[in-house]
Amino acid sequence: MSYVAPVKDLMFNLQHLAGLEQVASLPGFEDAGLETAQAVLEECARLNQEVIAPLNWEGDKYPSSYHDGKVSTTPGFKQAFRQFAEGGWQGLQHPVQFGGQGLPKAIGAACVEMLNSANLSFALCPLLTDGAIEALLIAGTPEQQQTYLPKMISGEWTGTMNLTEPQAGSDLALVRSRAEPLQDAAGQPDGRYKVFGTKIFITYGEHDMASNIVHLVLARTPGAPEGVKGISLFIVPKFLLNPDGSLGPRNDVHCVSIEHKLGIKASPTAVLQFGDGLAGKLPTGPGAIGYLLGQENRGLETMFIMMNAARYAVGVQGIAVAERAYQKAVGYARDRLQSRPVDGSLAAAAPIIVHPDVKRMLLTMRAYTEGCRAMASVAAAAYDGAHHHPEAEQRQQHAAFYEFLVPLVKGYSTEMSIEVASLGVQVHGGMGFIEETGAAQYYRDARILTIYEGTTAIQANDLVGRKTLRDGGRTARAVAAQIERTEAELQASGSAHALAVCQRLQAARQAFLEVLDFVLGNAKADPNAVFAGSVPYLLLGGNLVAGWQLARSLLVAERELVAGNEADFMRAKILTARFYADHLLSRAGSQRDSIVEGHAAVTEMAPEFF
Amino acid sequence: MSYVAPVKDLMFNLQHLAGLEQVASLPGFEDAGLETAQAVLEECARLNQEVIAPLNWEGDKYPSSYHDGKVSTTPGFKQAFRQFAEGGWQGLQHPVQFGGQGLPKAIGAACVEMLNSANLSFALCPLLTDGAIEALLIAGTPEQQQTYLPKMISGEWTGTMNLTEPQAGSDLALVRSRAEPLQDAAGQPDGRYKVFGTKIFITYGEHDMASNIVHLVLARTPGAPEGVKGISLFIVPKFLLNPDGSLGPRNDVHCVSIEHKLGIKASPTAVLQFGDGLAGKLPTGPGAIGYLLGQENRGLETMFIMMNAARYAVGVQGIAVAERAYQKAVGYARDRLQSRPVDGSLAAAAPIIVHPDVKRMLLTMRAYTEGCRAMASVAAAAYDGAHHHPEAEQRQQHAAFYEFLVPLVKGYSTEMSIEVASLGVQVHGGMGFIEETGAAQYYRDARILTIYEGTTAIQANDLVGRKTLRDGGRTARAVAAQIERTEAELQASGSAHALAVCQRLQAARQAFLEVLDFVLGNAKADPNAVFAGSVPYLLLGGNLVAGWQLARSLLVAERELVAGNEADFMRAKILTARFYADHLLSRAGSQRDSIVEGHAAVTEMAPEFF
Repeated sequence: MSYVAPVKDLMFNLQHLAGLEQVASLPGFEDAGLETAQAVLEECARLNQEVIAPLNWEGDKYPSSYHDGKVSTTPGFKQAFRQFAEGGWQGLQHPVQFGGQGLPKAIGAACVEMLNSANLSFALCPLLTDGAIEALLIAGTPEQQQTYLPKMISGEWTGTMNLTEPQAGSDLALVRSRAEPLQDAAGQPDGRYKVFGTKIFITYGEHDMASNIVHLVLARTPGAPEGVKGISLFIVPKFLLNPDGSLGPRNDVHCVSIEHKLGIKASPTAVLQFGDGLAGKLPTGPGAIGYLLGQENRGLETMFIMMNAARYAVGVQGIAVAERAYQKAVGYARDRLQSRPVDGSLAAAAPIIVHPDVKRMLLTMRAYTEGCRAMASVAAAAYDGAHHHPEAEQRQQHAAFYEFLVPLVKGYSTEMSIEVASLGVQVHGGMGFIEETGAAQYYRDARILTIYEGTTAIQANDLVGRKTLRDGGRTARAVAAQIERTEAELQASGSAHALAVCQRLQAARQAFLEVLDFVLGNAKADPNAVFAGSVPYLLLGGNLVAGWQLARSLLVAERELVAGNEADFMRAKILTARFYADHLLSRAGSQRDSIVEGHAAVTEMAPEFF
Repeated sequence: MSYVAPVKDLMFNLQHLAGLEQVASLPGFEDAGLETAQAVLEECARLNQEVIAPLNWEGDKYPSSYHDGKVSTTPGFKQAFRQFAEGGWQGLQHPVQFGGQGLPKAIGAACVEMLNSANLSFALCPLLTDGAIEALLIAGTPEQQQTYLPKMISGEWTGTMNLTEPQAGSDLALVRSRAEPLQDAAGQPDGRYKVFGTKIFITYGEHDMASNIVHLVLARTPGAPEGVKGISLFIVPKFLLNPDGSLGPRNDVHCVSIEHKLGIKASPTAVLQFGDGLAGKLPTGPGAIGYLLGQENRGLETMFIMMNAARYAVGVQGIAVAERAYQKAVGYARDRLQSRPVDGSLAAAAPIIVHPDVKRMLLTMRAYTEGCRAMASVAAAAYDGAHHHPEAEQRQQHAAFYEFLVPLVKGYSTEMSIEVASLGVQVHGGMGFIEETGAAQYYRDARILTIYEGTTAIQANDLVGRKTLRDGGRTARAVAAQIERTEAELQASGSAHALAVCQRLQAARQAFLEVLDFVLGNAKADPNAVFAGSVPYLLLGGNLVAGWQLARSLLVAERELVAGNEADFMRAKILTARFYADHLLSRAGSQRDSIVEGHAAVTEMAPEFF
């Protein structure tokens, strides 16, 4: 089997870190306890291991292809997507009233990880559909929701997010696509718009896995203000709908090409042309028919809510590809015989997994992956609390914590995934560089994760601006206070590993607090200095929170060991936490230095000096 | 122009760091002063910029291809190699008596960097040929030298290194290829051998750019001892030679396939079969005819000398690809307009090169590249001193310094090149992930550099074993003592930048010395602990030496600024050194921690726990 889902670790996090039993005490989640989680995760593991994972390398060999406006996905994808949809997996976290399972995000996120480990390219289709569903849930009229949600949740139709244009990437203020209101016979707006423009980098913007595609498109209405405050969001289905809900005429949105990419080759990245007139047969003439979603000029707000969901999911993609790269590297390291052990314990070539440097690489991969997984699990539970807790204050606290974690989950888990995938190649030695080995695919695939749904720098802007400055650092300090409590527990444990981890955690927290003071103190007076350190601040924050969650894991594992549960798993967890502390958390000091003391060169370096 | 050779920076290093004027005072290098260097570098830049660099992307699009035992290289490569050869570039550093230019390595290395920046795949052919030439110079009989060297130095023939077999990668003790002595009519060995075996990962093991290929092949003679002490080195030409030196019959060595790789696609990576009998027409029957190079059973020693040259060159490849990735990223960052400056200095989208995080990324790329380039330049000058200094003690000192630096140049420059190439993709945002942009090629190409010619772990073993333990840390301490003198100069300068750099350098040196004590003190008693930190030790060493050379550069630049020379270049140099100190050298402390305090988890983690 090319992938074995880490159900045990996912369940460990749900039970011991994310507090699933508490989540299951929230209204609406009564059936979502540990037993349900275990059953769902095992079923999910089966589908991903047996059906979807084997298509991963196929997708790399036989990417999506474009011909004459149509995109054919990798052979097998269509059937696999049917199985995925029929299993109800698209609707796992979505409301029961539209056909979903209504499970907590804490469980849903574990399933998202598996799907992405199995096949990053495949998983992007449901991932984007989830985002579109989210937007419709937030901003759609009851009629729009009834029209689109059941079909999307059942996997009959899929969804896309259309933001980027050639001149507008990170900077959506530059969006130029336009939407003109259509008028009825009496010259009054009839609620429809004609959308014109070119959108690029549209994931699954065209494909053959579903009968319709619901595009959500950012565009400007006539006379809309310049900049981000004049952007509206439109629903533009590939096929218009007849009054009875059946598929009607082809809309005037067309895929004109797909990109030739470094990785995730099976996922078609489309250039979409809205209103190029090729449809020709629409009675309204050229222009893609669209329907306003939410309020005019406030499209970006809705888009951001859905992007937040997508950003979290991309963070999970990082964890997912890291896990897969790790499993592959471990497998190779067990099989490959090369060189005698340095301690002379064997007089013949040993499996390279005994060599200290290979262990160090594998532990690095494992520690990053488990640390980020734990962080993501805790964040998901906070999301559930934010949406389902009966008390407003609790909801607000959970929301603040979740919002703070999103850029860390997205930014840190994806940055680490590149390093992990690269280590995976390294463990394979020369074989890692040969495409047929498969390790290189993860290295290529992972490379998009720090870019799409907002680059790491964009996540860092979000962290600095909306998540730190806006509340004057309150949430950040609350996180630090929680970490301090974990330190006290580590002290109380008193074991050598706990004490060592405690020391690192404390130093990292101090470094984080110093950085926080720096960010809060200088953002207004010297924004260039603060933003020179914005990504290091994000990486420090992610490092701290992931290390913290592993520290918590260590405490749990010590207790479980005493209780006689899963001894090997618990020992490995303790050592992974210790490794994380000594090798990764220990970087916090230098991260602090480069933020607090390292901006001079960045600021002074004139652009023309490069 | 897709590449502009950094002649100014290369000359800065030669003049101010490597001490080219001193090199030019050594016997044999009288004409190799700054003027010569400037002229050679400019001529080299022209060829690489105009002829070889434009073939880089071509090589990625149209890789070498295999058909029926023959390999066709990318269109244009053959002609470019002719130009390269006719310009005398293959012989730049090789002895005049065999047709070379006899220039110092200090100058040669600068030219090697340019060639590799222009085209990593193309450059591998001369790189391997250089290695083979080196081996022949060291171990060849006068007759062998006369037979092969002039043709190889002129670029008529090329050379290869045949080490790896499917079961023998890093561990050459496992080599199984065999060589049987041929006998004359009287039953006496006639000096020829028949070589049998399969070699993999043979760079330019077959191609169409030269009329003959001189393979150097590791194999065992009958009755040779097991392990590394029973391996001999053989010359196995693709075409045997007639007594008059003209090409004779095809030898029984054949390319049976080439690899499908992540990067350096234009460079054919061959599987070579020695003695599969397909030649058929040799009067000796199946078996590739080979000639012993050097002493029987001591092939590995020769191979190591030539591998040391190749390792240094691969380090330069890292610098080269980093430079090219940097140039591309700077170009994009100047052109791409996106988002307003965070300091509100412009009310419209600005070139992204003004954004602090983009500057931070570009400075990271630049600092790594310039730091490693400076380290490599100083190492090359030490090589020249080691081979040309009239005094034995001086030669010995230079040799020790050079030998110490080789694993750092190889290991650190290549590890950083992956990070730099990855940042290059990141600067491009979504466009970076599109293959046609070209940034992704560097990310793919760079990934081999930490693997071939000895993985980073193998370099680290070399650093720990042969370069640190063997002399009890004497060379390492001598390097630290030199660094301390630079610190004193920084203190004497007294400028804010110099003082800041001094502080980082001092801390990094202290960290290095603590690590050194740890390595020396524990290698025998606890080798697993020491080798758990071997790669971090290498990275710390590389970091320290590169940071040191930039600190020296800062001092030079301050003086040159006062003298009114090249103000912008010197200011950029100062800021690059400062950036390196604050963002990279500052990692030394955490590197120390993970070595000295981070081995417990690695050692305790049982292989079955992964």
